[in-house]
Amino acid sequence: MNNTILTYETVSLDENECSLLILDQTKLPSSINILHLTDIHDIWNAIYTLQVRGAPAIGVAAAFGLYLEALKIDTDDYTLFNEKFTQAKDYLNSARPTAVNLSWALNRLSKTVTVNSSKTVPEIKELLRLEALAIKSEDTQTCRLIGEHGLTLIKNGDGILTHCNAGQLATSKYGTALAPIHLGREKGMNFRVYCDETRPLLQGARLSAFELIADGVDTTLICDNMASQVMKNGWVNAVFVGCDRAAANGDCCNKIGTSGLAVLAKHYGIPFYVFCPASTIDMTLKTGDEIVIEQRPSEEVTEMWYSKRMAPDDVKVYNPAFDVTEHELITGIVTEFGIARPPYTESLSKIFQDKRDFQ
Amino acid sequence: MNNTILTYETVSLDENECSLLILDQTKLPSSINILHLTDIHDIWNAIYTLQVRGAPAIGVAAAFGLYLEALKIDTDDYTLFNEKFTQAKDYLNSARPTAVNLSWALNRLSKTVTVNSSKTVPEIKELLRLEALAIKSEDTQTCRLIGEHGLTLIKNGDGILTHCNAGQLATSKYGTALAPIHLGREKGMNFRVYCDETRPLLQGARLSAFELIADGVDTTLICDNMASQVMKNGWVNAVFVGCDRAAANGDCCNKIGTSGLAVLAKHYGIPFYVFCPASTIDMTLKTGDEIVIEQRPSEEVTEMWYSKRMAPDDVKVYNPAFDVTEHELITGIVTEFGIARPPYTESLSKIFQDKRDFQ
Repeated sequence: MNNTILTYETVSLDENECSLLILDQTKLPSSINILHLTDIHDIWNAIYTLQVRGAPAIGVAAAFGLYLEALKIDTDDYTLFNEKFTQAKDYLNSARPTAVNLSWALNRLSKTVTVNSSKTVPEIKELLRLEALAIKSEDTQTCRLIGEHGLTLIKNGDGILTHCNAGQLATSKYGTALAPIHLGREKGMNFRVYCDETRPLLQGARLSAFELIADGVDTTLICDNMASQVMKNGWVNAVFVGCDRAAANGDCCNKIGTSGLAVLAKHYGIPFYVFCPASTIDMTLKTGDEIVIEQRPSEEVTEMWYSKRMAPDDVKVYNPAFDVTEHELITGIVTEFGIARPPYTESLSKIFQDKRDFQ
Repeated sequence: MNNTILTYETVSLDENECSLLILDQTKLPSSINILHLTDIHDIWNAIYTLQVRGAPAIGVAAAFGLYLEALKIDTDDYTLFNEKFTQAKDYLNSARPTAVNLSWALNRLSKTVTVNSSKTVPEIKELLRLEALAIKSEDTQTCRLIGEHGLTLIKNGDGILTHCNAGQLATSKYGTALAPIHLGREKGMNFRVYCDETRPLLQGARLSAFELIADGVDTTLICDNMASQVMKNGWVNAVFVGCDRAAANGDCCNKIGTSGLAVLAKHYGIPFYVFCPASTIDMTLKTGDEIVIEQRPSEEVTEMWYSKRMAPDDVKVYNPAFDVTEHELITGIVTEFGIARPPYTESLSKIFQDKRDFQ
């Protein structure tokens, strides 16, 4: 295995900063294909079809996409600029409903426009460029900090079970749940990682297994329904998963299947950690019940990846993209500001205080 | 949807009783293909490659296969006949290690040869024919009784979650875990059934969903990792699963993923029932720890069904075909003699007493 995958960026601007480069994750692991996108509809589509996915990476892609669209607004009139900018922002925000980072990143750019209403449109465009680049570089720094905190939870040789992809491919660099693994590799450590394949879209098989092997990690692929047996075998020291949106009480929304893993981890006495940049915590939501769960097309289950349809024609399909893991099942929430422990209402508030102090 | 599937038998002898007919389950749901097998290697292969699968159906197929092979033994010498017969039996028995019904059915035919050593070889061949046919007709009767007991556990309109296929396609008729559903349909009842797709071989998507829709059942397909969310939604009144081998203490071995479902059901307070003909209970095993778990090829996870490989080339794969659900997680074990409840050491012994009285 060559490790070229780690030399490509998940999301970036091209060197002239006039198009968005996305490593097309729907084509991995069989081919490495870089998309060059300039049209906002193509960028919306790249987010919707998961060519770019993972809450932090979606935020970065949307920020770059909105900046590129702002460049095209051909007016010096602030009001008109703001109107068209807001239309573009609302459009990109509609690509996926669950991950908070999408609206969070778009709102950061929106705020840039709002608070600089006294500046010229060209000046605002430059500030949008800087803000979008800042979102990306902060994401890399955030992931590194998350990795450092996470690395305190495991020791060399440990077995980690992970679900979906909360790795380098879901962020600007390092990842969230996989950041401790990649950072540990930099320090010469190794771990045994068990990757749930993560049906229906196989992000575990296609993405996590791929980036871990590229980094030289001892990686074993399992079907989602094998996690119970792997835990029972005593192979798992900790479960590390990502997060798409967390509520103030510590309920965490992540890829479908996460809540089941948390129940299993509790049953087998294995610590269950959620890795979550502070931007992913939505303090306006009291509990996870308020999180909107995206329902996706049935064909993802019955047809995608298959050479022929693998289910009867008229079967109903339930295909939620995410589920919510109750805070009672979560051992800790690892953020760039440290590891929040129960009671989360208190520890997450403290993190938000740190975040305000930090900014 | 036409319901032709229910008009085909899973396993049978052709009308001249000189070949084994198997409804090829690897081709469902896209085509209905009946295999006509006479060669013992083809029959071994049909069992190994899951063209016929499900513990009871494997038992019936093996019995017919061994009978057909016995017909070909061209001798009137009992000792020579018995030697060749035993070779054929051992060969078929090697096709799959976990399901007890395979060896159980083959041993019934073996016993027929042993206890009739005073008879002529042609007489013994006729007795083998009768014994193989009896195994099949008893299986149908057993499944009907299992269905009647199971139907006492649910009411019209209930939601049932099932895993893999323990239906008509896994037996001679009715199925085990799905027998209450099919019997309920005969009585004009309906249920909402949630079918785990059951990776890697998709028996839930391809087989259970297919036979349930053919029977007019309100059927919803889910990926295995969605079961937690479906349970949390309050949609599931009971979990019904099959069994490939049960131990004397009530530990039950079934398709990989079953043990995880049992943990989830306990967490959400949902009753978890295992459906299990008495022939599947192996009283020689004290606990499930003694059950040999078949490990299957990694390509089932990384390639099968896919038009291209969906995981990195050199990833390790763990692919156990089964797992063991501890008796503590099982609400009841439904057999043709009634529903065993904890403590299983006592209730299963009682069932074995009934079985001896019945025979």
